[in-house]
Amino acid sequence: MATTREGPAKRKRPGGRSARVRSAVLKATVEELAQGGYASFSFEKVAERAGVHKTTLYRRWGDRESLLLEAMLELGAERAPIPETGSLRKDLLKLARAIASSIPTPEVQAIVRAVISVGDRDPKLAEVARRFWSTRIELDAVIVDRAIERGEVPPDVNRELVVEALLAPMYFRLLMTGGRLDKKFLERLASFVAAGAGAEPR
Amino acid sequence: MATTREGPAKRKRPGGRSARVRSAVLKATVEELAQGGYASFSFEKVAERAGVHKTTLYRRWGDRESLLLEAMLELGAERAPIPETGSLRKDLLKLARAIASSIPTPEVQAIVRAVISVGDRDPKLAEVARRFWSTRIELDAVIVDRAIERGEVPPDVNRELVVEALLAPMYFRLLMTGGRLDKKFLERLASFVAAGAGAEPR
Repeated sequence: MATTREGPAKRKRPGGRSARVRSAVLKATVEELAQGGYASFSFEKVAERAGVHKTTLYRRWGDRESLLLEAMLELGAERAPIPETGSLRKDLLKLARAIASSIPTPEVQAIVRAVISVGDRDPKLAEVARRFWSTRIELDAVIVDRAIERGEVPPDVNRELVVEALLAPMYFRLLMTGGRLDKKFLERLASFVAAGAGAEPR
Repeated sequence: MATTREGPAKRKRPGGRSARVRSAVLKATVEELAQGGYASFSFEKVAERAGVHKTTLYRRWGDRESLLLEAMLELGAERAPIPETGSLRKDLLKLARAIASSIPTPEVQAIVRAVISVGDRDPKLAEVARRFWSTRIELDAVIVDRAIERGEVPPDVNRELVVEALLAPMYFRLLMTGGRLDKKFLERLASFVAAGAGAEPR
């Protein structure tokens, strides 16, 4: 299809069409999950929703787990970019606020609950979750690296633990205790985690 | 039934039979959930498994949510009693170890995943989860109260946050990242949380 659409786009900006297809497919992936859950999630449905041929999906992502991982990472990057304020506590607070405003959305809730409820029964999905979180925690840990470089925290601080200590209580409240992610809680949490990491108040 | 069984037990130790029935019913509740999930969880099935009449359950617990809450609290109290070592870090570590060895068991996993996957779709179950966690966090927070009394941490420390900061990363690893709850992680976590609370190393 779309030789006429493809032609001009390719001439105007190389990669333009490819980037648009990627963006449409990742968006459709999230929407499909939010609407139908993981059980009915398929390349066919995503392709239909995105308005592309399903061979495009097979060629680019190979399997639905790879597509899901990329869609989750993209959603995370859009909703909660890595902050850089010059202070560990402020970076943690900014990240916490971004996450707190994104996790109650239907799309994020749908993905989180789908992954947890399927859990160990689907090793491929469990592997997607592990890879998503290890990538995401590694990205967020840059905040801690910068704090170490500034001399704000000791160089032997466990960078992944600092990130986990910030993220976990938010998901714990959202999924388990029903506690609120209000302004005061996020501020206390960020201060607590900065203190745990050994940062002096700034 | 059981007039003959009830008689001697009552004479020997008051409350003996009642305590045995309670214990059998709570155990059967957990087993039923682990085996059949929340969808098929009913007074009928629990009564059958515990070998008591279902009117006993209606009389004592009223609805299945009250029974579930009591069973969850009992399981928590058995598996992870509140430690008292004289040091905040050591108390946190002891509690973390008890929880880490109980949450991968089929019974605890079944309950946790059932509650999360049903989630907001069942307000009564969501309320059970909220009440379980607020009770459990309040119980665990005694560790922090004692640390305040000993002058180990500042009196204005947020006691619930300290408990959440310990529990959340364990459930986060178990349910979301797939990270291991090994010895080193639990030690780092306990030290991190004690530092976050403002405790000097002891």
